[in-house]
Amino acid sequence: MSGPAADAGSSSGGPTRLLIYEPSHRRIAKELAAHGAALELLLMDEAGRLTLGGVEVTAEEASAEAAWANGDVFASGAARAFMTAMLKAPRLKWVQSAAAGFDHPVFGSLIAKGARLTTSHGQAVGMADYVLAGVLDYFQRGGERRTAQVESTWRRLPFREIAGTTWLIIGFGAIGQAVAQRARAFGARTVGARRNAAPHPLADAVISMRALGDHLPVADVVVLCAPLDAATRHLANAAFLGAMKSGAVLVNVGRGGLVDEAALLAALDAGTPAHAVLDVFETEPLPVGSPFWRHPRVSVTAHASGIANGQDARNQALFLENLGRYLAGQPLLHEVDPKDVPTPAN
Amino acid sequence: MSGPAADAGSSSGGPTRLLIYEPSHRRIAKELAAHGAALELLLMDEAGRLTLGGVEVTAEEASAEAAWANGDVFASGAARAFMTAMLKAPRLKWVQSAAAGFDHPVFGSLIAKGARLTTSHGQAVGMADYVLAGVLDYFQRGGERRTAQVESTWRRLPFREIAGTTWLIIGFGAIGQAVAQRARAFGARTVGARRNAAPHPLADAVISMRALGDHLPVADVVVLCAPLDAATRHLANAAFLGAMKSGAVLVNVGRGGLVDEAALLAALDAGTPAHAVLDVFETEPLPVGSPFWRHPRVSVTAHASGIANGQDARNQALFLENLGRYLAGQPLLHEVDPKDVPTPAN
Repeated sequence: MSGPAADAGSSSGGPTRLLIYEPSHRRIAKELAAHGAALELLLMDEAGRLTLGGVEVTAEEASAEAAWANGDVFASGAARAFMTAMLKAPRLKWVQSAAAGFDHPVFGSLIAKGARLTTSHGQAVGMADYVLAGVLDYFQRGGERRTAQVESTWRRLPFREIAGTTWLIIGFGAIGQAVAQRARAFGARTVGARRNAAPHPLADAVISMRALGDHLPVADVVVLCAPLDAATRHLANAAFLGAMKSGAVLVNVGRGGLVDEAALLAALDAGTPAHAVLDVFETEPLPVGSPFWRHPRVSVTAHASGIANGQDARNQALFLENLGRYLAGQPLLHEVDPKDVPTPAN
Repeated sequence: MSGPAADAGSSSGGPTRLLIYEPSHRRIAKELAAHGAALELLLMDEAGRLTLGGVEVTAEEASAEAAWANGDVFASGAARAFMTAMLKAPRLKWVQSAAAGFDHPVFGSLIAKGARLTTSHGQAVGMADYVLAGVLDYFQRGGERRTAQVESTWRRLPFREIAGTTWLIIGFGAIGQAVAQRARAFGARTVGARRNAAPHPLADAVISMRALGDHLPVADVVVLCAPLDAATRHLANAAFLGAMKSGAVLVNVGRGGLVDEAALLAALDAGTPAHAVLDVFETEPLPVGSPFWRHPRVSVTAHASGIANGQDARNQALFLENLGRYLAGQPLLHEVDPKDVPTPAN
C-alpha cells in the first residue's frame, strides 16, 4: 500500500504537505496550483481514503505538515478519518480550522502535538443575522402573527421595536461585534462584555465579565457568544437569569455549556427571561426528550446559526491567505494562543 | 346644547381651538397647558362627545382651527365622529396626521376645505423592523425551522445571509431610508427608487421609477413603500413580477393598491417571487376567502407593520413641535404639498 511518494515531503526544506478534503480541493485547485512545487497535496476523499500524488497512503504514512480542517469535511462521513490523519501526523505544524471556537478536544490534542492552530470567524456574519432574526421574531410576536394567518383572522398586533432597547452582548469578539453592528442600525444601545474591557466603536459601553450583574437588570436582549471555558461554564445560572429584566430575551449562539439548562427552564417557567432563542445545547443533538423542544417560550435550532451561504467563501479566502503566509513564513491571521486551548495535559 | 364657549375661539387673533382626542390629551396636558391662553381645547371623548371648556358642543358648533388626527382616535370608536368634527369645521386651518400616507379620502376633503396637512413618519422605525423581520425569516427558512422544532428533530438548515444581497427599495422616503439603514448594516447593497433620483447616503444607488426594469432582475429583496397614486397603482403587475430574480422576496408595507394581486398570485404559483411578505391589501381587512391567507409562500399581517411601541412617542413629539411652530407662525415639519393629495375635485 505504501507508494513512492509516501516518505517524501514534510521534511524541512521540501514542499509543504497539505492535508485537504478532496471536494474542498476542487473549488480551489487553481489557487493551490499557483504555489507550484512549494505545495504537495494529500487528498482525502468522501470515503476517508488518502492519496498522495494519486497513490493511496495510510494515515500512518500520510504525515501532513499542514491541514485545512474545514466545514465540508467535518459535515461529511470522512470527519473521523480526517481527524485521525491529523492526529497521526508526526510533524504536523499548522491547522486552519473553519470554526471560531476551539473547545473540541481534537484542538487540544493538536496543540499538544505542537501544531499551530488558526481559527476562522467566517460564521460571524450568519450568526449575527440569526441573532437578529430571533430577536425580531420574538419582539414582533411572530407566533401570534402566524396563528392569526392560519386562522385567516385580521388581527392587528402591536409589537416592540428594537430602537431604544439595550443589548448586552457577552463575548465581544467577531460574532458579538457583528451583532452590535446590526443592532445599532436599528437604534439599539449595545453593551459588550469581555475579559478586556477596552472601548470599542461598535459598543456604547464595554464592560468586564465581573460587571455583568450591574447590566443584566437593564438589558432587553442578552446574547451569549463567549468562548466556553472554565470561567464561562454555566455563566447563565440561576443568579444570572434571576437578575434579568422582565420581558427580556436570551439568545445563545455560543456553546450549550454557557447555560445551566435546568436553571433556564426554571427561569422560563417563572417568566424571566420571557423568551429564549437557543442554537446550542449541553448535549447535541438535543435529545428528543428535552423540554426545550416543546417549551412555548423557546425557539430551538440545531447548532446551525453559522451555516449561512457566505461562510464557505469567507473561510476559503482566509485559508488561502493564511496558506500564502505560512509558505512565506509570515505571521498567520487568527492564530490561537496555545495556552488558551484546553489540552489533554492541563 | 350650545354653551357659552361655543362661539368663541378660532377667530383670527383669538386662541387657537385645537380638536384633540381626550385620552391623547391626558398624556400631553402639561405640555399643552404651557401654551396658556394661546390654546383652547376642544376635547373628544371615547364616545365621540365634544366638550369645550367642559361644556358639551355639537360638531356644528365645535369649529376647530387645528386638529391632531392621531392613531389613538382612529383606532377607537370615536374615529367617525372625529372625522365629522374636522369636516364640519368651517375655519379648519391645520391637521396633524399620524400617518405617512394621505390617500385616504378624508385628507383630500380637508385639503379641499383649505386646511394644511402635516404627516408623520413615526411609523418608519417599526415598519423597517418589520421588513427586516420578514426578510430574515424567509432567508433563514423560519417555517422549516419551526417544523423541525415541532417534530423534535435536529435538522441543520443552511440559510441565506443578507450580506451581499441587493435590495431594491421602491419609495425612498422615511420608511425606505430606515429599511436601507438596517439592510446596509447587514452588508446589503441598497438601491432606492423614487421620483427624484438624487444620490442619498443610505443608498448605493438612487434610480428613477422609470429605471425599475433594469434593477428588478438583480434584486434579491424588493420592498414596496411608495405612496399610492395614479402612477404607482398596480406598479407590481405581471411585467414587474416577471422581471424579478429567481429566489427573490417581495415585501409590501406601502399600500395594497401598489400590487396587482391576481398577478402576484399567478407569479407566486409560477415560482417568482419565491416569497411575499404582505402587510397591506387592496381590500382590508383581507377577506377570509383570500388565497393569500393560505398560500404557502406568503406571510400575511394585518396592516400592522407600523404599530410598534415607539411610534406614539415619536408622533407626539412631532405634534408638539408642529403645534409650537403653528402658534408661532413658523414653517411646519412634513407639510404636504396640496397638489400631491387627491381631492374630491381632481
